[in-house]
Amino acid sequence: MKQFPDEFCNQLHDLMRWRRDVRHFYASKPVESALLETVLEAIRLAPSVGLSEPWRIISVKSDAARQKALNNFENTNADALKGYSGDRAQIYAGLKLSGMQDAPVQLAVFCDDGTEKGAGLGAGTMPETRRYSVVSAIMNFWLAARAQGLGVGWVSIIDPVQMAADLDAPDGWALVAYLCVGWPMETSQTPELETVNWEKRDPLLAEIQER
Amino acid sequence: MKQFPDEFCNQLHDLMRWRRDVRHFYASKPVESALLETVLEAIRLAPSVGLSEPWRIISVKSDAARQKALNNFENTNADALKGYSGDRAQIYAGLKLSGMQDAPVQLAVFCDDGTEKGAGLGAGTMPETRRYSVVSAIMNFWLAARAQGLGVGWVSIIDPVQMAADLDAPDGWALVAYLCVGWPMETSQTPELETVNWEKRDPLLAEIQER
Repeated sequence: MKQFPDEFCNQLHDLMRWRRDVRHFYASKPVESALLETVLEAIRLAPSVGLSEPWRIISVKSDAARQKALNNFENTNADALKGYSGDRAQIYAGLKLSGMQDAPVQLAVFCDDGTEKGAGLGAGTMPETRRYSVVSAIMNFWLAARAQGLGVGWVSIIDPVQMAADLDAPDGWALVAYLCVGWPMETSQTPELETVNWEKRDPLLAEIQER
Repeated sequence: MKQFPDEFCNQLHDLMRWRRDVRHFYASKPVESALLETVLEAIRLAPSVGLSEPWRIISVKSDAARQKALNNFENTNADALKGYSGDRAQIYAGLKLSGMQDAPVQLAVFCDDGTEKGAGLGAGTMPETRRYSVVSAIMNFWLAARAQGLGVGWVSIIDPVQMAADLDAPDGWALVAYLCVGWPMETSQTPELETVNWEKRDPLLAEIQER
């Protein structure tokens, strides 16, 4: 059986501690395509329900497509701000919640809900596991990227139906995440939402109940 | 900025290649609680939308709770089998799709959909990102476990509402995964579904479209 040494386990823990949701990128520092391909390979190694491999990716490159995506975020974010008041609204308004204006690589990640691959195995009562497979792939990608020094930011303040339409995504593709990728301007072990006092990270895993 | 050496990146790739969905465990070889706690720590390091940390875990330990969970799987699996015919049905009937009869550790992983933590940030238009946060945590756990030599199997052939009721889960908790954890009887780089010719793994990531 393949063994992983203690030193690797410790470094893996470090990698997970240093993985952050990045919103500040060096806009003019490109991500080499060979490096990006190496990191994308991690997606293919993710688990998928019934081996359905339902992940689909659209690389958002053109100015027109990026502008539509940015408009989507800005409109959705303006709506979200209206849901807060007082201190919360003030903090929220000051947050930088996407790196879409800077990130050299932007990937819209979809789930092909209707794929016949896997013949439905494992997804009968929990069809949402197809989308969960895509999330698993994103996590592999995120960790592999961070190991190479790249930053990844997951933008969820998005109207997903509008995004699919704007990107002319094939029928049946549901947006799971909009990822910003690039070289991070700063790295920290502390989530930005904790730094600005939006929310605290729990120091311990919540009590595990037993049955 | 924290750097990870090339050797670590290569080992991380190996880890992802060796991570499998495990269904065959050494039933009588216990998982030391200190080791399990170390691996569970990886959950706390996962990303969560708005820092909502919505992951909730019930450790399924008692004979009574395990029997209910096993019944749930067996009934759901029997129903799923009815959906196949011919060769597919024959292969399906021969698959071992859960390690629930062997795994020394069994964790029902839920999402607290109603948590107020994070004050809804990032989850306005995509509330499913709370459950995606739980999936991210499961992936961290899975990789950390495999690095320690532990196997993890994700059972999705489950009626999730019945499972929540049987385990007396608090209101608002939605089942995301039922995880079997233990020492794997065999390890391989090849998914079992590929070995039995249920489905092929794509040799390459599907073409990334551009917009």
